Amino acid sequence: MLKKCALMLLALAAVTSPASAMDDKQAIRAAETRQAVLTVVGWNIGPMSAMVKEQLPYDADQFQLHAERIAYMSTMLVDAFRPDTTQYPVETEALDLIWDDFGEFERRAAAMNEKAEALSAVAKRGDFDASKAAFLELGQACKNCHDKFREDD
Amino acid sequence: MLKKCALMLLALAAVTSPASAMDDKQAIRAAETRQAVLTVVGWNIGPMSAMVKEQLPYDADQFQLHAERIAYMSTMLVDAFRPDTTQYPVETEALDLIWDDFGEFERRAAAMNEKAEALSAVAKRGDFDASKAAFLELGQACKNCHDKFREDD
Repeated sequence: MLKKCALMLLALAAVTSPASAMDDKQAIRAAETRQAVLTVVGWNIGPMSAMVKEQLPYDADQFQLHAERIAYMSTMLVDAFRPDTTQYPVETEALDLIWDDFGEFERRAAAMNEKAEALSAVAKRGDFDASKAAFLELGQACKNCHDKFREDD
Repeated sequence: MLKKCALMLLALAAVTSPASAMDDKQAIRAAETRQAVLTVVGWNIGPMSAMVKEQLPYDADQFQLHAERIAYMSTMLVDAFRPDTTQYPVETEALDLIWDDFGEFERRAAAMNEKAEALSAVAKRGDFDASKAAFLELGQACKNCHDKFREDD
């Protein structure tokens, strides 16, 4: 309860502060936005993962399209996490450590972006084995960030 | 109740049918995905709208970045709406008319994509008045689709 009151006071302080003022509604929207960016990434990961596991036939054009979309979405990742929502009542699996160590978060997000760009380039060649290898590297980059900055399931 | 039973039977039938089989969980994910695509569009619309209304100073680089992102997101719109979730218990403002008249939905989504591409091209010139005009045209294209295919607020 005390923590909740403290959060509310901080939220009020934020509302009355200039320039970067954010209220609960804006904070909820910020959290929804970063979740939306990752939902769109996940939506594209799904069929690629099924192709890599050979649960779906490999479709080079579709694989390439999904890879390109993920590469594009990954360029929004850091911006989507920029609003520090630690002082607001938002539903999130994002650990506060993101905002305590934003530099490290940016580095891991940049590593994900790099692997996504690499996957997108490889996918254009239509080579299943090379695409699979690049996809698994992207998966590792996702995991590296989740392990440090996302609540355990 | 009868309608609910009918929906459940249809959902079961869908699960047991080949290829396009979808269960409730997948349908919820499909609805979340299209909402996510539109959330990311809205996130980028926000600051552009504030600049157009002169509530925020016009920042040509930021305006251009947001325009480019919206143009890219708009290419995913039709795919994100492709799963017909009318027979599943999903939270959605999407009217069933989308799937009853998917051709018209595609035409309106394509018109939105066209206006978004035009805005992205205009925004590169850094001309506030031209950007504002193109932004308002995009807004009209969004409205044309929402008016027909989205539940009233």
